[in-house]
Amino acid sequence: MSHFSRRSVLALGTAALAAPAFAAAAVKTEQWGMLEIALKGPMGGNPFMDVTVSAVFESGGKTVEVPGFYDGDGIYRIRFMPDRIVRGRWRTKSNAAELDGKTGSFDAAPPAHGNHGPVVVANTFHFAYSDGTPCWPLGTTSYACIHQSDARIAETLKTLAASPFNKLRVAVFPNSSTENFGILPFVGKPLAFDFTRFNPVFFRRLDNFVAKLMALGIEADVILFHPYDGGKWGFDAMPPEVDERYVRYLAARLSAYRNVWWSMANEYDQIKAKNDASFDRLFQIVQGADPFGHLRSIHNLFNVYDNNKPWVTHASIQNGSAVESDVSAVLFRDVWRKPVVYDEVKYEGNLIQRWGNLTGQEMVRRLWEGTIAGTYVGHGESLADEGHRMFLGEGGKLKGESPARFAFFRRAVIDEAPIIDPIDKWQDRHLGGVPGRYYLRYFGDTAPKRWDFMLPKEALSDGQKFAVDVIDTWNMTITPIDGVFTIRKANDYEFVSDRAVELPGKPWIALRIRRLT
Amino acid sequence: MSHFSRRSVLALGTAALAAPAFAAAAVKTEQWGMLEIALKGPMGGNPFMDVTVSAVFESGGKTVEVPGFYDGDGIYRIRFMPDRIVRGRWRTKSNAAELDGKTGSFDAAPPAHGNHGPVVVANTFHFAYSDGTPCWPLGTTSYACIHQSDARIAETLKTLAASPFNKLRVAVFPNSSTENFGILPFVGKPLAFDFTRFNPVFFRRLDNFVAKLMALGIEADVILFHPYDGGKWGFDAMPPEVDERYVRYLAARLSAYRNVWWSMANEYDQIKAKNDASFDRLFQIVQGADPFGHLRSIHNLFNVYDNNKPWVTHASIQNGSAVESDVSAVLFRDVWRKPVVYDEVKYEGNLIQRWGNLTGQEMVRRLWEGTIAGTYVGHGESLADEGHRMFLGEGGKLKGESPARFAFFRRAVIDEAPIIDPIDKWQDRHLGGVPGRYYLRYFGDTAPKRWDFMLPKEALSDGQKFAVDVIDTWNMTITPIDGVFTIRKANDYEFVSDRAVELPGKPWIALRIRRLT
Repeated sequence: MSHFSRRSVLALGTAALAAPAFAAAAVKTEQWGMLEIALKGPMGGNPFMDVTVSAVFESGGKTVEVPGFYDGDGIYRIRFMPDRIVRGRWRTKSNAAELDGKTGSFDAAPPAHGNHGPVVVANTFHFAYSDGTPCWPLGTTSYACIHQSDARIAETLKTLAASPFNKLRVAVFPNSSTENFGILPFVGKPLAFDFTRFNPVFFRRLDNFVAKLMALGIEADVILFHPYDGGKWGFDAMPPEVDERYVRYLAARLSAYRNVWWSMANEYDQIKAKNDASFDRLFQIVQGADPFGHLRSIHNLFNVYDNNKPWVTHASIQNGSAVESDVSAVLFRDVWRKPVVYDEVKYEGNLIQRWGNLTGQEMVRRLWEGTIAGTYVGHGESLADEGHRMFLGEGGKLKGESPARFAFFRRAVIDEAPIIDPIDKWQDRHLGGVPGRYYLRYFGDTAPKRWDFMLPKEALSDGQKFAVDVIDTWNMTITPIDGVFTIRKANDYEFVSDRAVELPGKPWIALRIRRLT
Repeated sequence: MSHFSRRSVLALGTAALAAPAFAAAAVKTEQWGMLEIALKGPMGGNPFMDVTVSAVFESGGKTVEVPGFYDGDGIYRIRFMPDRIVRGRWRTKSNAAELDGKTGSFDAAPPAHGNHGPVVVANTFHFAYSDGTPCWPLGTTSYACIHQSDARIAETLKTLAASPFNKLRVAVFPNSSTENFGILPFVGKPLAFDFTRFNPVFFRRLDNFVAKLMALGIEADVILFHPYDGGKWGFDAMPPEVDERYVRYLAARLSAYRNVWWSMANEYDQIKAKNDASFDRLFQIVQGADPFGHLRSIHNLFNVYDNNKPWVTHASIQNGSAVESDVSAVLFRDVWRKPVVYDEVKYEGNLIQRWGNLTGQEMVRRLWEGTIAGTYVGHGESLADEGHRMFLGEGGKLKGESPARFAFFRRAVIDEAPIIDPIDKWQDRHLGGVPGRYYLRYFGDTAPKRWDFMLPKEALSDGQKFAVDVIDTWNMTITPIDGVFTIRKANDYEFVSDRAVELPGKPWIALRIRRLT
């Protein structure tokens, strides 16, 4: 038995398992920690295809069957994430006698500091950790970072640790532009992989990366498929039964990491060998194969997937123009009654391609526009170096101007604000927040010198008093305005204050308006 | 046997039906015309509840069973719309011996001039009549017009006949503000209706109104439920079995009119006694009860119904702000891959309420913004008279400034344009049309003096020549620009002409750009 990071690993040789006394030695983990059972089993034939193994975990009258997986070298693993502080037992099932009927117990202690459990949907349009702590996903992307050298992966993790980002979109499969350094998900060679044999070396690297993100408090938004194969690898056109084995294998390996989100695909509609029905099927396979119910989404180019389907937990949207204004950003919220994450809104970058040359200012503006619409906007950086590498593709260092402003946004909004919903959304208010309590008014590209204090009527009454801060979202300052703003009803729709708010006459200004009494 | 308007009515007494020779006298109608069989049957008990009647129509090996309905005074009717030029036979089925097993034949001639059949979805986002003629629904609304006096209904029809509108949204049930002049869908009194007995007088009036719209070439977008009952009538909270009888009765009466569209509800999400599941059920009942497959939609206030559900043929959207820009209007198109009709975008009017006081200019601007986004925008008028009556509610005369501009739009765009889809939609192009062939560039509220000729690359090549017309959408002029515009590739995304387009420096200008070679 060994401990690795926060993962509790229980390695059992057949000899040890033969001793019934062993069952008394409970493996210790924590609520939402990972418990791993490692068993020695058959090595002959093709264990990936021939051997099934799972374990039934029982605690407090609740049982969960968790699929295991073959990790090479005759080792089978079953990973479990207890969702409570609880003691319990497990028993294996297998078509291999050596792996069948093994038993043991486990003990899940209270979660350690910083462990809030998996993220779930909360309040229809928002997210929270499983312990109830609100979660504001502030994401970025590095599609091919796990296909880089160990040194570059370490640099990526160091960058993320120092960044404001708490979610990373990362693809399992390499892009056509990814250099092949030989560690790939299947055994064999490009375009001639043996799709019946996974490569455990690759997946251990992936496990390790996800675990390190978890230690940093970063959600791993794992992208299962994408259309950037370019005929180089063949991962975008595997037979359906291989797709299924692949997603089941991933689910068996990763589901017990509390920070996993499933992104079924990037630009799913560009994958020629698949259609909506393919992803309906794969979504349901993942949903069934993940015993812990992690978040599930799918990312589009031109055709948006039907996010109303019950296996979709939230919308993951690529749309460059929707977040150019809160007025448009809000529209997708009305459609699905689920959280809307604008995971791709073009990138801060220096590319000739128009999807990759936003200024830092424009990247940050989109963040704020989406925010007051009650949606979540992700960052991305396509500032290519001489070798055409960029954080978006290969990870490494972030070099843009926007990450510092995302960090400021975290301090100014996420750490302060309650949930932000759009307020009086059809009336050009450009207001988000909680009516009667907290408002963000964002001015975007406009640069007014004053704002006539006005709030839509919901939850307001005469005489209420508000404090106002001027937030310069680019220069990263928060300037309280002296004194208070007292409101009175102006008409059927609005409350006003007789005192106007002086503004600096610069773009990218927001107001934070908080009720005092 | 008698002919009424374009409806062919076959009235059969039991005596006549007893003579087998009668079957040889085919009732004549036309393709997509209406054939009506009228039968004398039981009058005792409650025929609405006790008697079932239908007819099976057979022609060319195809059979359709069409439900009939009781029309009072011992008369039962079965209405059929042949979808081909065909001869065929019918036979009735009933639980009443007098109505059962009656037979006859029919003869559907080619459609008369102006009869293009029912409207169906075409090219994913658009509409066409069943004969293939494109259909551009340019709608308006008069919710309670059928609850007005005969004189006012006649005035409404006269107004519509002279208007550019070819679709009318009209509710079956009255609003709380509607005066009760005693002709209502059920027998009895407000809040004490006998929900087991329909009022044939009301429904004959409705039939007649729909038939008159049909004669004018106007689609009747019939609204089955709405939330404006206000506790006055009780039609918004009938028991589910009454809802079902009501929609079946409507379907039996109206489905054979080729101009019927079904709008399940107005502001469906505001009907307190119903939820999404209620409408899932009612949609499917209508779908099953309408043998001719008319268009089906549902209109929202805050919560948009899941228009991806298979029984929804197109989205019927209320959204005041989505059509303030083509950039936002296009978003709903991407979600459902069905036609998007913005049936309510606020109204040209003089009300204090903010949904009812658009200027004519703003009403027309929304039409054009939605159009270049590849969607369909409806008109509405809330210019109230001294008695608080307005076209939106009670019909009558249209008095606003926008209808003339809708008529101009019909001449300038609908009569000229191919299908309009958004072009290069995420890049602030403000262009709709068919790439390589036809473009509309709309400038909205901006008033530029020139436009540097630029088109996104799709379907273009060097040397192609274009003609340009300047359209003043408010002053209703179309001014061709002399000479041609020859294009060359400018970069990876765009083709340009060295010649710029001079513009009048006024708002609400559009360009029509047509390829010559």
